[in-house]
Amino acid sequence: MDYMKESLKKHYEWKGKLEVSPRVKTDSREALSLAYTPGVAAPCLEIAKDGSKVYDLTRKWNTVAVVTDGSAVLGLGNIGPLAGMPVMEGKCVLFREFAGVDAVPVCLATQDTEEIISTVKNIAPSYGGINLEDISAPRCFEIERRLKELCDIPVFHDDQHGTAIVLAAALENALKVVGKELSTARIVINGAGSAGIAIAEFLLAAGAGDIVVCDRAGVLTEDGDVFNPAQTALAAKTNPRGVKGTLADAVKEADVFVGVSAKDVLSADMVRSMASDAVVFAMANPSPEIMPDVALAAGARIVATGRSDFPNQINNVLAFPGIFRGALDARASDINEEMQIAAAHALARLVGDDELSETHILPEAFDPRVAPAVARAVKAAAEQSGAARI
Amino acid sequence: MDYMKESLKKHYEWKGKLEVSPRVKTDSREALSLAYTPGVAAPCLEIAKDGSKVYDLTRKWNTVAVVTDGSAVLGLGNIGPLAGMPVMEGKCVLFREFAGVDAVPVCLATQDTEEIISTVKNIAPSYGGINLEDISAPRCFEIERRLKELCDIPVFHDDQHGTAIVLAAALENALKVVGKELSTARIVINGAGSAGIAIAEFLLAAGAGDIVVCDRAGVLTEDGDVFNPAQTALAAKTNPRGVKGTLADAVKEADVFVGVSAKDVLSADMVRSMASDAVVFAMANPSPEIMPDVALAAGARIVATGRSDFPNQINNVLAFPGIFRGALDARASDINEEMQIAAAHALARLVGDDELSETHILPEAFDPRVAPAVARAVKAAAEQSGAARI
Repeated sequence: MDYMKESLKKHYEWKGKLEVSPRVKTDSREALSLAYTPGVAAPCLEIAKDGSKVYDLTRKWNTVAVVTDGSAVLGLGNIGPLAGMPVMEGKCVLFREFAGVDAVPVCLATQDTEEIISTVKNIAPSYGGINLEDISAPRCFEIERRLKELCDIPVFHDDQHGTAIVLAAALENALKVVGKELSTARIVINGAGSAGIAIAEFLLAAGAGDIVVCDRAGVLTEDGDVFNPAQTALAAKTNPRGVKGTLADAVKEADVFVGVSAKDVLSADMVRSMASDAVVFAMANPSPEIMPDVALAAGARIVATGRSDFPNQINNVLAFPGIFRGALDARASDINEEMQIAAAHALARLVGDDELSETHILPEAFDPRVAPAVARAVKAAAEQSGAARI
Repeated sequence: MDYMKESLKKHYEWKGKLEVSPRVKTDSREALSLAYTPGVAAPCLEIAKDGSKVYDLTRKWNTVAVVTDGSAVLGLGNIGPLAGMPVMEGKCVLFREFAGVDAVPVCLATQDTEEIISTVKNIAPSYGGINLEDISAPRCFEIERRLKELCDIPVFHDDQHGTAIVLAAALENALKVVGKELSTARIVINGAGSAGIAIAEFLLAAGAGDIVVCDRAGVLTEDGDVFNPAQTALAAKTNPRGVKGTLADAVKEADVFVGVSAKDVLSADMVRSMASDAVVFAMANPSPEIMPDVALAAGARIVATGRSDFPNQINNVLAFPGIFRGALDARASDINEEMQIAAAHALARLVGDDELSETHILPEAFDPRVAPAVARAVKAAAEQSGAARI
C-alpha cells in the first residue's frame, strides 16, 4: 500500500481524528442545573478552597496537552504549527487508544523560546501533563528545562526522552543477548540533535561507561565554535578514552552503534570495523543509517531500526502512553529520571528470557501488556522518588 | 432539589465532564501507518503547501477553545483558573450537545492582560474559534479587541455579546407585545460592567435611540475620576436627553429596565415611576434586581430574569452554541456585528406571533430548533458581510 497517498485520502474523509465527547447529560433542565448553572458553583467553590480538588472534580487528572511549534515535525523539518496538526492529532489518538489518556493538540503560533515557555506555563492549569513534541534543538532543551521548573505538572519532551527510553530498553535486551555489560560496552551515538543528546544523557544515567557521540563535524568536543552549548556540555561528560576524528574512527572496535542521524551514513566497512557481536541501532526515518541486511552481512549480530517492516522496531509508542498513564495515576509533579529508568526496565522485562533473541529484543507495539506494565513501573517509581502526590 | 449539594456529589462521581475520543482506528499496524507515521506525513505536507487545508485535514474546523483566567466566574468573582474549570467543562458540554462543536477548556495561569493576549494568540492555530469566558471588566474589552486583530479566527467574549444577543432578542419580542419601537423606547441599563456595556453597545447597533446607563455611582458621565475608560466612552454615546442623578432618576418614565447588577436594586416604587406597559429585565443571578411578582404588582407588563424557575429566562445557552456553529460552518474570520444582529433576530423570530405573549418572549433553552436557526442566520450574515471563507 502507498501509505502516503492512502493516508491523505483518509485524512480528507476523516476531517480530523479526534472529537470531544460529553461524559454527562444536559438534556433536561435538571441535568443542566447540575452540570452547569446554578449547581456548578459548588465544585468551583470547593476548588477555590482547596486547589488539589481540581483533580477530583474536573478532567485535569486524565488530560495531557500535546504541544508543538511545528519546527521539527517528523523528518519534515520546520513546516509550522498548522502543518504539524495531523501528527499531534495522531499522537492524541494513540494516547487514548493505548493508555486511556485524554490528549489534546496545542499547536503554537510562535517559535520564540520565551514565548513558548510563557504560553505553555499559562495554559498548564487545564492539564495533568504536558507532552512537548517536534520542537527543534537546541531550543527544546531550554524550553523543557524551564517549563519543568515553572509547572507543577509533568513536562516531557517525547522526541528526547521517549526515544531514549525505548532505545535503552532495546539496548538492555540486546546486550543480554550478546553477553555484554552496559557499564563496559563501547557505545557510539551518531547524531547530536535532541534525540541523540537525550539518548546519551539517559544511557549515562542508566550506567553506561563508554559513550562517544558524533555529529556531522565528527566526534563531539568542547569547541564552542563547532558545537552548540548542549553538545559541548555532552562532550565534557562522554568520550572517556579521548577518541578523535570522524564517525569511521569512532566506530572502530565499538560494541554498539546508535544512529539518530541520516540515511546511509554507516557503511558496511564501518560495521566490519566494529567489535564482534556488534549491535547496530539505525533509527533514521524513513531510511536508516544502514539497511539491516547490509549490516548483518557485514557482521552485526543484532540490528534494530525505527521501521515497522523490519524486526526490532524502536517505536516511541512503546513508551509515552504508559509513561503518562503512570505519571497521571500518581498525580506526579514530574516525570523524573527514576521514572524514566523504571519505564525502560519495565519495557525490557516484557520480553522473557525464553523469547529473547537477535530478532526479538522489544515487545510489539500492539502488545496490550505494554502500556499497563510501563504505567505500573512509572507510578511505583514516582511514589519511591517523591514525585507522586497521591 | 438542592442543586449545589447534588451537583458537588455528581462532580465527584463524574471526575470530569468531558473526554477526548478518537474518530479513527489504530488497532493494527496498517491503521497506525495511516493515522500516524509514516502516512501522516502526507496531510502534513499538504497543509505546509496550503495552510487553508488544515480545515479539511484536521479537526480545526469544528474546535473551539473556551478560555478563562478565572477572574469573574459566574457570580463568584475572582476564584482563579483552577476553580473556573467546572464551568468551562460545562460550557464545552453545552457546545457539543446543542451544536455539535468540539470545545476544550483552557484555564490560564495569568490574569495579566498582555500575557493573556499573547497566550491566546499563540494557541489559536489549533482552533476554529475562541470563546472568552468569565474574564473581568475592564480587561476583557482590551483582551477581546486586541485578539480580534491578532487572530484570523473568531474571538467572542460570551459574557458580553452572548448576553447582549439573547437580551436583544427578548427585547425585540417584548416591544412587539407592548407595541413600542426600539428606536424611540426609553431604555435604562443598570450595571456598567462587561455585560451592561456590551448590551448598550449592541442595542445601539441594533437601532435603539434612547439608552441611559447607570452604575453604582449613578448615571454614567464622561468624568474619568468616577468612571473607567469603557464607561466614559459609553457615556459619550448614550443618554441623549442628558439625564442626571441616580437609578431612581433614570427610570422615571422609562419604557425598559435592563438590570445586570445586583439583588433588589430596583424597588417597586421605581417600577411604579416607569412608563405604562413597562418592560423589566432583572438579570442579576441568582437573585434578581426585583422579584417578578413584585415588579408585576407594581405595574410592569413584562418581566424577564436569568432564572429557569420564572417565565422568560434570558439564558446565554440560547445563543453561543448556534453562533459558533454558524461561524465555524462559514469558516468565518470573525463573529462581527452583522452576524450577532442576525443571531438576535433569528432567536426572536423563533417565537411565532401566535405564541408571543407577556410570558413567552423567548424560545425554551431545550427547543431543538434554536441552535440550527441561529447557526443558519449567522452563517448567512457571515457570507453577506464578507467574514465567511468558504
